[in-house]
Parts: sequence; structure tokens; C-alpha cells
Amino acid sequence: MSKLLIVGTVAFDAIETPFGKTDKILGGAGTYIALSASQFDVECGVVSVVGDDFPQDYLNLLTDRNVNIDGLNIVKGGKTFFWSGRYHNDMNTRDTLDTQLNVLADFSPVVPDHFKDADIVMLGNLHPAVQMSVIEQVESTKLIVLDTMNFWMDSELSLLKEVISKVDVITINDEEARQLSGEYSLVKAARKIRDMGPDYVVIKKGEHGALLFHKEEMFFAPALPLEEVFDPTGAGDTFAGGFVGYLANSKDISFENMKNAVIYGSNLASFCVEKFGTERMLELDKDEVDRRLKSFQALTQFEINLA
Amino acid sequence: MSKLLIVGTVAFDAIETPFGKTDKILGGAGTYIALSASQFDVECGVVSVVGDDFPQDYLNLLTDRNVNIDGLNIVKGGKTFFWSGRYHNDMNTRDTLDTQLNVLADFSPVVPDHFKDADIVMLGNLHPAVQMSVIEQVESTKLIVLDTMNFWMDSELSLLKEVISKVDVITINDEEARQLSGEYSLVKAARKIRDMGPDYVVIKKGEHGALLFHKEEMFFAPALPLEEVFDPTGAGDTFAGGFVGYLANSKDISFENMKNAVIYGSNLASFCVEKFGTERMLELDKDEVDRRLKSFQALTQFEINLA
Repeated sequence: MSKLLIVGTVAFDAIETPFGKTDKILGGAGTYIALSASQFDVECGVVSVVGDDFPQDYLNLLTDRNVNIDGLNIVKGGKTFFWSGRYHNDMNTRDTLDTQLNVLADFSPVVPDHFKDADIVMLGNLHPAVQMSVIEQVESTKLIVLDTMNFWMDSELSLLKEVISKVDVITINDEEARQLSGEYSLVKAARKIRDMGPDYVVIKKGEHGALLFHKEEMFFAPALPLEEVFDPTGAGDTFAGGFVGYLANSKDISFENMKNAVIYGSNLASFCVEKFGTERMLELDKDEVDRRLKSFQALTQFEINLA
Repeated sequence: MSKLLIVGTVAFDAIETPFGKTDKILGGAGTYIALSASQFDVECGVVSVVGDDFPQDYLNLLTDRNVNIDGLNIVKGGKTFFWSGRYHNDMNTRDTLDTQLNVLADFSPVVPDHFKDADIVMLGNLHPAVQMSVIEQVESTKLIVLDTMNFWMDSELSLLKEVISKVDVITINDEEARQLSGEYSLVKAARKIRDMGPDYVVIKKGEHGALLFHKEEMFFAPALPLEEVFDPTGAGDTFAGGFVGYLANSKDISFENMKNAVIYGSNLASFCVEKFGTERMLELDKDEVDRRLKSFQALTQFEINLA
């Protein structure tokens, strides 16, 4: 079985959308990535940090899904990272209401020995120094996938670029791709970002889907048009988790297979947004996932015969 | 050979984009639709109106492509409809700088006898009263396709709804679909619009592609990601022209075949935006179109085997 190492926040979120609001609930990029990747038959481990205010029930949600948490540091007397945000009516934009780094401020990731040879490493959005530290700890990894955001482009660009130079795949959203490259056209942006290091660039466009670029080729996975988007939190991380989970499970990191991986990522993300927080991901079963993959096929596949 | 009747403006445009500006050049929805539809082997006729300031050269551009202009009324002493607009840097929004209706103000469309039995009628964006007059003149038409815009929703909603109730397909953009239906979700919007009459709803999302809805099914055609969008003018009309041209040529108005039609529409629209105005459409050859269709296949087709 392939090993997948996930590095990312495990956190409390408080979310407001036009449909309602939550108290502190389970959140964090590492959580969403792990819940999504655990849909696949892979040996999955999370490296992260929480405080001792983090409930055992939440830890059980991960271990019940065979997510190894040996690399999850529980800091005694520490408080777990907390994020709070409010979505606007269009659900595409949000305001951050509160960010309390807490134990995340001093996070020094330690990759457990039995995950140092992980086949795939997924670096969730974190300080580039943390991401770099993980890159230095792993050995013989076949594929490193990086997620990041505009915050690090503004504050830690040179370090971020060093990280980018060492990874195989980068996933960022369209605005971040434009910021990082200085190009408005996503085709040009992806080319410039590939020149920084990664062989593959995945540009996430939210409700407008995701683009995968490799050499002069590109592939597009739409987002499934939904009756209702209830809470977009974690959709990008769920996408990334589906992407790496599928790749790890299929043991094939070719461009052709990455097309399937972005479809699986989009598919899983389409569930994530249907309820608050991780709720929908926790109740998901394989039949639902397979049925919706057929919707993706119906949505995108056509038959034109060309000479 | 199938007959396709196109009703739409034939006009002068003056366009400013971040890349440059034009003097008065050939424009109008009817023009773009006809140039796009004439890529297919169909008997294509335009019903429209111009002034006698409209150059013979521009008329020749249409007739050279076997577009019948018996229904193009040339008003003696009249001036041709003129539109001028400036695109913002993102190319997704624009300001109208000038609109001179001129001969369009009194346009009373007359469908030539030999197009009254057109297999497909494409009603380009025009006053709903003009669109209704055409609907009343055609007989035994198999498919009526309607394009419209928010302007008519604001000013002539009840008449527009009467027109909508009589057509088979409506093509509008995402914001207009939301305005017309009062629903933010495009899935819900399309359902409400289908309840108004059309069996098929095509929602155009510009650079984010187009969605086709029919009953509980949907299909998505991406826009081809381009190195550079030079001038978006006419892209929506070129899409519509490709859609109806393909349907007329293939003589198959099933949902399955409409999937191909939106792909052809997207494909032709991707050329339209590469140069100013109609320039790129006028030089287009069949080999280029076929090659780019292969790019659409590569962009969207994947192989996941589900049980």
C-alpha cells in the first residue's frame, strides 16, 4: 500500500455563511486533506500540531479512518489554532474575522520515521519554513505536492520560491497564480510557475473548476454545478486530498493519470461544500462518490469524430 | 441542406481594449452569428437592417461565405447601428461609450419567403418585439434559439417572457440567468428558466465556459484557456453561431448532439477573441478549427473506469 504523508493545520474553525453560523468546529487544511485522502486505500499519516484543548473525539475521527497521527504533536497547556471567517452572499469571497495561531506559532514539524519514505507528500498551506523542514526530512519521495496562498507571497516570497523550486506539483488558486507569475493569462501564468520548478501546476478556480498544466498540455476539471453551496470552507483542501489520495492509491503519477486525479479531487470537493465544515465528508460513502463520478462523466464527456 | 435563419444586428463597432483601439469596424450580433455558422455546410440567411452608409465590401464578406442577405434591409438615407465600448483590464467587463440605434430604431424584420420554412431560427439579441415578429413569420421550424440580455429584462420583461415562452433554447450569461430567475445557483436558475418555456437552457460564463441544461441533465463546455484574449467582442454571438450551425448541419437536435454543438460553439468563440472584431473569423480555415477541436478533446476527456 502506498504511503501518503500530509502536512497541514488541524484546527478549530468558526464559520458564518448566509445559511447560518457554527461554534468552534473541526477544521484545518490537514484535516480536510486527510478526510478526503482517506476515501482511498492508502497508508495516510498527518504531521501537525494541536493544543491539549483538542478533543479526543476529533482525534478519533481521524484514527477511525485509518489516518495515522503519530506525527500530530499535542502540546501540553497549548491552545489549538483557531480561524473564524464570514462568507459573502456570493460564497466566493470571505472576510477573516479572527486568526489565533496559538500552538501553530512555534510549530516545528517532525516526520515520524515510518513516513520518511512516503511515496507522496502533500504540503498543505503553512509557513514556507515549515514546508521546507518537511521536504528536508523525507527521503526517496516520488512526488511532492505543494499548496500555498497569497499571504506567503506577500510576506515570505523568497522562502516560498525556494520551496516551490523543490516540489513536483503546486496547487494554487487563479488570483494567486496571477500574483505569483505577474501574468493575467492562466496559460502564461502556469508556464512561468513551471519555470520556477514544479512540473505540474494545478490552478483552482473554485466554482469554475480546476486546470492542470504540464509541459504544453492542459486538462480541465469542472466543479460540479450544485443546487446549493452551503459552506465552501475546506473545498480546496478536499480537492487536494482527493488528488493525492487517488494518485497514491493508483501508484501512477503520469499526466494521463493526473487528469483522473483532478476529477476525483473535484468530485470530493463537490461533497465538502454541501454541509458545514467537515460534516459532509464524515458521512460520505463509496457508492455516493462513484455515483457522482458518473455525473462528472455525463457533464464533460462528448463524442465528436474527427478525421 | 438545412436552412438556418439568423436575425440580429449588422452594425459598426468601435472597440477599445488594453491592447489598442479600432475605428468603426464591422460588427453586430447577426454578423458574428453568420460568420460562425457559415463554417458549416448550411443554407444560411440573415434578417437585419443597415443604412446606405454600410460598405458593399462588408456585404460581400457575408455573401462570399454563402450567407443569403435577401432579408437584409438597406435603408436609403439611413445610418447603420453603431456601438462603441471599452474593455477593462480583466477583459470580462466593459463600458458602453456610445450607442446610436439609427435604422435599428424602426427595424421591422421581414423574413424572405424562402426562409419561412427554416429548420432552425437563431434570434440574436434584439428588442423582444422584433424577435416576436420573426417567430410569427416562420412556419414548421424545428428549433428556435433565443439570445437576449439584461437590458431587455430591465425594460421589456413581460414581452421578453412571452418570447421566452415560445422558444426551444435560450442562451444567456450567468448574471442574466440569475436576474431572470431570481436564483443564485445556476442549477436552480436553469430549472426556473426551463419552467418559462425553453426545453434547453445554455448559460454562458465567458472565460469560464458554458453550461447546457435539459430536464435533469447538464453538460459543460469549457472555454479554451488562451495565451491572450485580444478582444472579447462577439464571442457570445460566435458561440451561438457555432451552436446553431453545427445543429443545422448535423440535422440532429437531440440533447446528446447539443453537447457537441456547445463544444463547437466554444471552439469557434475561442478564435473570435484572438483578434479585433471579426478579423480572426474572416481568416479562419477548417483545418485550424479541427485541430483546435482536438485540443478541446484533450482538455476535457478522461478515462476512469467505474464498476
